[in-house]
Amino acid sequence: MASRVDLDDVIYGVHAIEEALVAGEPLRRVHIADERRRDPAVRKILDLASERGAQLRFEDRRFFTQFPYKAHQGVIAVGPPFPYVTLEEALAKRGKPALYVVLDHITDSHNAGAIVRTAESAGADAVILPERRSAGINATVRKAAAGATAHIPVARVSNIAETVRKLKKASVWVAGADPGEGSLNYAQADLSGDLALVIGAEGQGLSQVVRKECDFLVRIPMLGKVASLNASVAAAVLLYEAVRQRSPQPPRP
Amino acid sequence: MASRVDLDDVIYGVHAIEEALVAGEPLRRVHIADERRRDPAVRKILDLASERGAQLRFEDRRFFTQFPYKAHQGVIAVGPPFPYVTLEEALAKRGKPALYVVLDHITDSHNAGAIVRTAESAGADAVILPERRSAGINATVRKAAAGATAHIPVARVSNIAETVRKLKKASVWVAGADPGEGSLNYAQADLSGDLALVIGAEGQGLSQVVRKECDFLVRIPMLGKVASLNASVAAAVLLYEAVRQRSPQPPRP
Repeated sequence: MASRVDLDDVIYGVHAIEEALVAGEPLRRVHIADERRRDPAVRKILDLASERGAQLRFEDRRFFTQFPYKAHQGVIAVGPPFPYVTLEEALAKRGKPALYVVLDHITDSHNAGAIVRTAESAGADAVILPERRSAGINATVRKAAAGATAHIPVARVSNIAETVRKLKKASVWVAGADPGEGSLNYAQADLSGDLALVIGAEGQGLSQVVRKECDFLVRIPMLGKVASLNASVAAAVLLYEAVRQRSPQPPRP
Repeated sequence: MASRVDLDDVIYGVHAIEEALVAGEPLRRVHIADERRRDPAVRKILDLASERGAQLRFEDRRFFTQFPYKAHQGVIAVGPPFPYVTLEEALAKRGKPALYVVLDHITDSHNAGAIVRTAESAGADAVILPERRSAGINATVRKAAAGATAHIPVARVSNIAETVRKLKKASVWVAGADPGEGSLNYAQADLSGDLALVIGAEGQGLSQVVRKECDFLVRIPMLGKVASLNASVAAAVLLYEAVRQRSPQPPRP
């Protein structure tokens, strides 16, 4: 059974599946552990799954051992492939001002998922990620995103440097996160207009070709001895500074 | 061998062990996989370990299967118990203004480690966590903290509510992170003075008794449909807003 399922189409864990159902994602099947049948924690999943017409199956423990997930909590759902949007669609539906997050080859699924979750919370218009050498929206990403993949558009593009050029052409300022000396302190940079934040992989940072295409680079002050922030933490600090700058409330006196 | 080792005293992974050695943590033994003996990536660990007088042992693959870690990268070190400080010591050595992070029963080691890492990067004076129902500084926390546990004091206290009272007595403002309607927008709150940020566990949030003891509560605007931020992301956004407010640079015009 697991061999016929593309793991990219699997969602696991109570919270992630509940969010997917609430958002109306067309799940094909929901598999629930027999011993959780009367568990109040899965009640909402049972109700929503029947409401939405998803197949509901109760399984013994062995079923879940087919999957490489430990934190499935006895609930695994199989959906159709993730509905990526195109860059053009992401650009067409934008806020005023726009806010995009571009992932420059982040392969760690936990980081990618955490960034999608924060981007959704910060009201970003879309997350943009590359087709290759990058985490796609797989089960681990969806789990780390706590359901946010159901609410924010995700565009998959073939080339990040070219995407940055297209963003600039569409009058979006592109700011790359880079801890280098030549970068602006992020809190002094203007993040209030149409903006795309580019986040590199932990360790590597932005690729050279992408760094060159950015309109400007921003750095987060590092006041300790450890050299870098986690990629999802850096994304969060930058995203919420953009939110702060574009918020209508007057600054504190 | 693993049975005689308290797993709380184990550090694993190249980066975490290198940081511990650089910081002068008195590691007792460093175990390195035989096949990494000539690997340039572990050269610095080999040099530092002999310099610091730590025992160096080369092990076959079997050795590492005794430990519950997957990401050990063929390097595991055993140190003395983590050198916690007392609350009084943490209060005595404080910045001007002070900045503390209090973890209100965060049991997820990845979140606890990520918060320690960000707190160190944001120049916080100490992290404070409870003895019970909380992640202590174990191997997973150290790994997630990317070595930051070697650089920032961590105080372990018996009671968080009482700790909040002691902080207030020491003229530290205590701000609890709480998404409730009664909380201040964090960007409008004054985070520029002597401050302790209290972060609750994901899902539960702050405990009732701790929430009541806080001087004020702050919330991060949630502009999407997902109801909450990851605890380490929330801590990062709040910590770096405190850094921004206390930074000497003039605000952007």
